[in-house]
Amino acid sequence: MSKTSTKPPSGMRDFLPLDVIRRQHVTDVIRSVYEAHGFLPLETPAIENLNVLLGKYGAEGDQLLYRILHRRDALTRALESDDLDQSKLADQGLRYDLTIPLARVRAQYQDLPRYFKRYQIQPVWRADRPGRGRFREFYQCDVDITGTKSALAEAEVCSAVAQVLLQLGFDNFQIRINSRVLLSGLIAAANIPPELEESALIAIDKLDKIGPEGVLKELNQRGIESQAAASLLEIFECESARDDTDIATHLAARLADGPGRAALDELLELSRMLECTPAAGHHRLSPTLARGLGYYTGPIFEIEVDDLAGSLGGGGRYDNLIGMFGKQEVPAVGFSIGLERILLVMEEREMFPALGAGADVLLCWSDVESGELLSLARELRAAGLKVELIPEAAKLKKQLAYADNAGTAFAAILGADEQAAGELTVKHLAQREQERLPRADAIETLCRWRTEAAPDRP
Amino acid sequence: MSKTSTKPPSGMRDFLPLDVIRRQHVTDVIRSVYEAHGFLPLETPAIENLNVLLGKYGAEGDQLLYRILHRRDALTRALESDDLDQSKLADQGLRYDLTIPLARVRAQYQDLPRYFKRYQIQPVWRADRPGRGRFREFYQCDVDITGTKSALAEAEVCSAVAQVLLQLGFDNFQIRINSRVLLSGLIAAANIPPELEESALIAIDKLDKIGPEGVLKELNQRGIESQAAASLLEIFECESARDDTDIATHLAARLADGPGRAALDELLELSRMLECTPAAGHHRLSPTLARGLGYYTGPIFEIEVDDLAGSLGGGGRYDNLIGMFGKQEVPAVGFSIGLERILLVMEEREMFPALGAGADVLLCWSDVESGELLSLARELRAAGLKVELIPEAAKLKKQLAYADNAGTAFAAILGADEQAAGELTVKHLAQREQERLPRADAIETLCRWRTEAAPDRP
Repeated sequence: MSKTSTKPPSGMRDFLPLDVIRRQHVTDVIRSVYEAHGFLPLETPAIENLNVLLGKYGAEGDQLLYRILHRRDALTRALESDDLDQSKLADQGLRYDLTIPLARVRAQYQDLPRYFKRYQIQPVWRADRPGRGRFREFYQCDVDITGTKSALAEAEVCSAVAQVLLQLGFDNFQIRINSRVLLSGLIAAANIPPELEESALIAIDKLDKIGPEGVLKELNQRGIESQAAASLLEIFECESARDDTDIATHLAARLADGPGRAALDELLELSRMLECTPAAGHHRLSPTLARGLGYYTGPIFEIEVDDLAGSLGGGGRYDNLIGMFGKQEVPAVGFSIGLERILLVMEEREMFPALGAGADVLLCWSDVESGELLSLARELRAAGLKVELIPEAAKLKKQLAYADNAGTAFAAILGADEQAAGELTVKHLAQREQERLPRADAIETLCRWRTEAAPDRP
Repeated sequence: MSKTSTKPPSGMRDFLPLDVIRRQHVTDVIRSVYEAHGFLPLETPAIENLNVLLGKYGAEGDQLLYRILHRRDALTRALESDDLDQSKLADQGLRYDLTIPLARVRAQYQDLPRYFKRYQIQPVWRADRPGRGRFREFYQCDVDITGTKSALAEAEVCSAVAQVLLQLGFDNFQIRINSRVLLSGLIAAANIPPELEESALIAIDKLDKIGPEGVLKELNQRGIESQAAASLLEIFECESARDDTDIATHLAARLADGPGRAALDELLELSRMLECTPAAGHHRLSPTLARGLGYYTGPIFEIEVDDLAGSLGGGGRYDNLIGMFGKQEVPAVGFSIGLERILLVMEEREMFPALGAGADVLLCWSDVESGELLSLARELRAAGLKVELIPEAAKLKKQLAYADNAGTAFAAILGADEQAAGELTVKHLAQREQERLPRADAIETLCRWRTEAAPDRP
């Protein structure tokens, strides 16, 4: 029989125990910080109806959706149709982000709190080309506040995200802050017509990578005439080595009164507010930031860390999205952290604390009844210890070698002698220390060793 | 614009905050018990290659698989093919259970511990007809021990599952225990040929529902002649109101020496072992139990509780499955708990403890700067409190009503007066008790109230 490949599908991963333990450590921190900020947990199905998903992520997003093939009758009918295409073969797809499901939920359930604040930590799927830190199945960790246009909501989502990063041990991150409305104002100030706005943003976004000449060239190629292009570049070349006030002064001088100018003032106010949150010192006004998603309507954010191309997460205000699903407009603002990027940086920088993987105690034995072993395992577990029981008879040396390999810190050894005497041998593997004690004392010793090794564990 | 339906897809559910909190309570208990038993966490992708999944769950299982539609070139090629069917439209599908992914993982990674014990708590997807407690997306909570044929492994998985149920507050459950090998022996003892074994099992499995006459009729319809049918029924009518020893004596008298007889002895030994575990008093020999999946090769288990049609979970030994993926046979035994069934019973029986949902403190305010509010929120959170901040100015009465609605236990009120005096008003909403105190004292009071309300929370 020819063997099936046992690798996971391309762009997806198996998480072996140490991976899961690290991921849990990070999501536990995220969860506790999000809850401290008053966010409530939400979970939605992996599968959504396609008409919920389509058209929300741009043409490229639609291409990257995983679609679920019809079954039974629906499939038969599709296969019989004359002009078969993918729209006839599927009407459900996998979740692409956590924002659209939230918008659907907010529109569906009328009795949610007025300022429904939710967090959601779940995987999403995109049929993208896999790359470093880019997977086809990956986790997003989102916070969103719905039901208010108050800038306090912007400050709260940034506060939550900053606190997460600080608590995980990041110290050199920056939340870049901009606004869609400010961007539109700046582009208008350069005399670029609204229909070329999108094009101009794509070019400006490359300023860091291709420099001013490169951007000028690209702006021209995109049909923006030289004078407007030069003027746009002059507006945007203000970010490096200036503080928020300097940048704001530079921009304000170039903006007429109107929504763009008002948006700039709001960003400055947000900056001041953030100085009163854990984000203090970790945010900056960043006029070139232009997040791709079309649904943003106000401030936008992105987390930048040194030495990482791409961001750890981003977000912004989207006041019109929920209204696409429901009877009424519901303003909203959110921030999404990408779990895999966080893990990538934490692994490279060795930021993980020692995380106990697996059992505390390996229970080794010879010449005793199974029932006696199981009773002892039960007793040790009732004392709060994580216990692995060697399932097969083997030489004691081999059993202890197994404990060493598995990274178990301690062993308990039950032989016929110990059993007869009501005793137990306990061994501290790192310290090569071994004692034979009355059973209750032995269990107490193991618990003491365990507490000394990991004082914080409950 | 016509509005999209905002319901989740049929057979799938949105989990609103209280749902998630209850689910987390149950999975936290499961996780901690599994870890106490020395199981390590594993997570695998939602999507598997179809050749991993197909043929493992019987013809019906293959029908219930969610398949992922090809994209781009692969889809174009498929649509151009002459004899288009679903096998050309998809080569990936959604996870159907957690056992096949474990088998794939065990075969793929050569450096896993010899007795790799893993737990896995993840959703699976089946395009089944939705019903009470039956969903198309649902969570399984599995433990498996691989690499050993020792009956200690059977005892350990049953121990873990029993401890989970006890810790959740179940007291009237039974783990029904049988063996595929014993079943084969009993069917042979009734002179039914092996090719009719599957048929005979389907009929016998209905004994509870349709009674002996019904089963006899069905056995005849399935081509089993009357004398064999009567003899089979006589063998299996032994379960009610007898203990394991009685049942075993009844069966042993009808079995010749051979694998069936040996399997019976092994089950009795397992029963004795289970009396030394948390499963003591919660297991019984159950010769009519016949779990559907074809891959079981030895003991099989199923959890039964009063008042619930269907089981809370099940499992068994499967010594040949991993070998289908890898170069070598790896024996294994596992047990799977269905999260949704557990939740269904716990909800109906009101078994949930009071679970704190959402914020501890609602921060209400009037006539203060945003920065002052954010500083206060930060201070309260640093003291370990979960804090929600009202994002919009409103009358104090309205803000407090919001706290009542949201189920928040306490409020902190910051007005211009409090701010000027370095004070804070704190309110215990249930006790209608309110105090204005110096800020540090106010925070201490909130922490004390919080501890009194939920002494166990860290």
